[in-house]
Amino acid sequence: MAANPAALDSLTWPMIATARERIASRVSCTPVLTSATLDAQSGAQLFFKCENLQKIGAFKARGATNAVLALSAQAARRGVATHSSGNHAAALSRAARLRGIPAYIVMPNNSAQAKRAAVERYGGRITWCTPTLAAREAAARALVAETGAVLIHPYDDLLVMAGQGTAAVELLEQVPDLDVLLAPVGGGGLLSGCAVAAKALRPVIRVIGVEPAGADDAARSFRAGTILPSVNPQTIADGLRSSLGVRPFAEIRHWVDDIVTVPEEAIVRAMRTLWEVLKTVVEPSGAVPYAALLEPHPQLLGKRVGIVLSGGNLDLDRLPWSTPPAA
Amino acid sequence: MAANPAALDSLTWPMIATARERIASRVSCTPVLTSATLDAQSGAQLFFKCENLQKIGAFKARGATNAVLALSAQAARRGVATHSSGNHAAALSRAARLRGIPAYIVMPNNSAQAKRAAVERYGGRITWCTPTLAAREAAARALVAETGAVLIHPYDDLLVMAGQGTAAVELLEQVPDLDVLLAPVGGGGLLSGCAVAAKALRPVIRVIGVEPAGADDAARSFRAGTILPSVNPQTIADGLRSSLGVRPFAEIRHWVDDIVTVPEEAIVRAMRTLWEVLKTVVEPSGAVPYAALLEPHPQLLGKRVGIVLSGGNLDLDRLPWSTPPAA
Repeated sequence: MAANPAALDSLTWPMIATARERIASRVSCTPVLTSATLDAQSGAQLFFKCENLQKIGAFKARGATNAVLALSAQAARRGVATHSSGNHAAALSRAARLRGIPAYIVMPNNSAQAKRAAVERYGGRITWCTPTLAAREAAARALVAETGAVLIHPYDDLLVMAGQGTAAVELLEQVPDLDVLLAPVGGGGLLSGCAVAAKALRPVIRVIGVEPAGADDAARSFRAGTILPSVNPQTIADGLRSSLGVRPFAEIRHWVDDIVTVPEEAIVRAMRTLWEVLKTVVEPSGAVPYAALLEPHPQLLGKRVGIVLSGGNLDLDRLPWSTPPAA
Repeated sequence: MAANPAALDSLTWPMIATARERIASRVSCTPVLTSATLDAQSGAQLFFKCENLQKIGAFKARGATNAVLALSAQAARRGVATHSSGNHAAALSRAARLRGIPAYIVMPNNSAQAKRAAVERYGGRITWCTPTLAAREAAARALVAETGAVLIHPYDDLLVMAGQGTAAVELLEQVPDLDVLLAPVGGGGLLSGCAVAAKALRPVIRVIGVEPAGADDAARSFRAGTILPSVNPQTIADGLRSSLGVRPFAEIRHWVDDIVTVPEEAIVRAMRTLWEVLKTVVEPSGAVPYAALLEPHPQLLGKRVGIVLSGGNLDLDRLPWSTPPAA
C-alpha cells in the first residue's frame, strides 16, 4: 500500500504528542493491572497496560484514529481504505465512523466470523477477496481507484505509528519510573511508536520487543541490520505474522534495545496465566511479551517492568488449551 | 457455624464505614469498566464493578479481611476457621496470613484442584472431609474444639457482610449518580452489605438481587417473607448454591427492592458476552446480574446501572460453551 501522504520520513516525539491530543477524547485511557502473584513468580514488579480494554479491543484504535483524524477535509472526503483481516480493520472502520466518512475494508474470504462482525459493527464496507497477499493488494488498489479513498496501512505509516506510541505515553504517566518496557512486535507499529515515546520521556528505560520464535523476522532483521522478511510464519499469535515494515524498522533499529523470541508453548502458557491470575482476556499476540517473563531473569530482579497487553480479540470456541476429549 | 462473637444484631452504615477504613490498605479498590456496545444492547448505561480483579479474585476478600482484622488480639491468637470449598476459603486464608495467624479450612474431598491451590497459596491449612454439609460442619466443629480457632462464616456474619458492602461504597464514589445497583445473591452477604451501603449513601437508588432460577431460594424467601431454604439447587453458578443466611435475609427484606431470577442459558450467554466484549474473566456467579440485562428492560432505558461482577475464579478447562466435538 502507498504511504499515507501526511507521513514524514521519521517518527518524532512531537508527532506522538500531537497524536495524544488529537485522539484523547476518542480512545480509552486504559487501566494498568498489577498482581502480587505474578510479581513473585517473575521476581520483577510488573505493570500490565491493558490495551485489550482499548476501543475495538486492541491498541490498533490509537493509530487508526490518529491517521484518520489527521487527514485534511479534502483528503478525508472520499473515505479511507485498508486490507486487513484483523484489528486494524475494525479500528479503521470505527475511526472513519467517528469522522463521518466511509471505510472500505478488503478482507480475505476465509476471515473469522468474529472479525467480520467487528468490522460490520463499526460500519466498515467489506470487499471480499481470495486469501492471498496479491489478491488483497489488487483488491485494495481497485477499490482506491474506484472510490478515491485514502489507503491507511496497518503499520507502515508514521501517523499510525505515532498513534500506537500514545500507549507508552499513558503508561509512563501512570507508572513514571519504569526500568523496562516490553511490547510485542509483528509489523512493528506498536513497538516503534512505544520506543520513540518511551525514550523521549525516559531516556534510561530499556525497550524490548518480543516476538514468537515461529515468526522471528523482526529479531533476525534487528540482528542483521536489514529487513529479512517473514517466510511462512507459524504461530498462534495471528496478529504478529506480518513482516516488519520499513518505517517501523528504521525506528526500531535506532531506539529499541533488544528483540527476544518466545516459543509457542510459552505463549499459550502466558495467555492462560494472564486469564487465570489477572482475570483479563488477552489474545495470543497480546500474551507474547509476558511469555518472556514466565521464568525469572536475573537482570530483571526487582526491576519495574511495563508490559503492553496489546489486544483481547479471539474466538472463545477455539482456545489453545482446549484439548478435545478422547473419542 | 456460630456467629462471629463481635457481631451485633443488625448491619448499620457505621459498621460498613468502619470496615472500609479497616480494610482499605489490605484489599484492592477495583476498577469500573464500561462498554458502549453493551450500553447500546441494554438501552441503559452500565457500570461494571470488577470484583473479579479483587484480591483472591472475588469480593470475598473484603468480608474475610474485615472479620479477621476486627478480632481482638486475644480472640485472634489461635487463628480462624471455616468450611468452604470456594472463594471464602481463599479469602480467609489470605486475611489470616495478613494478620499472622493460622487459618484452618475444612474442604470437601471433591473440591476442584484450583480451589485447593488457592487456599494453599495463601497458607491455609486444609482438613479434608466427605462432601456433605453434615460432614463439613462436624469437621469444622472438631477443628475449632481442637485448635481454639474462631469460626468465620462465609456470609451469616455481620462483620463479613459489612466488608462485602464496601464494594458498593467504592462504586458509589466512582459513579455517584447510579439509579440502580444489581448484585448476585447466594448466601446474601454481598447483596445485604451492598444494599445497606447503597441506601445509606444514596436513598433513591434501587437495589436488586439477581439469582439463578435453578437456585431461587432468595427470590422465594423474599416474596414469602420468611426463609425458604434451597433444596437441591441446580446451577452452573457454583457460588450461588448456598441458602440465604438469617442475618443477610433480615437486611435484604428491609433494604432490597426486588430479587429477580435468570435461566442457566442466560447466565452462560452473559458470561461469554462479558469475556468477549469487556475482555474480563468472570465466573458464572459473577455473570448472573448481567444475565438479567441481556434484553432491554423498558424501566431501565437510559438509567445508570451499577453491576457487581463478583468474581473471576473458574477452571479454564471446563468452560460452559465448550462443546466436545462429535466422536
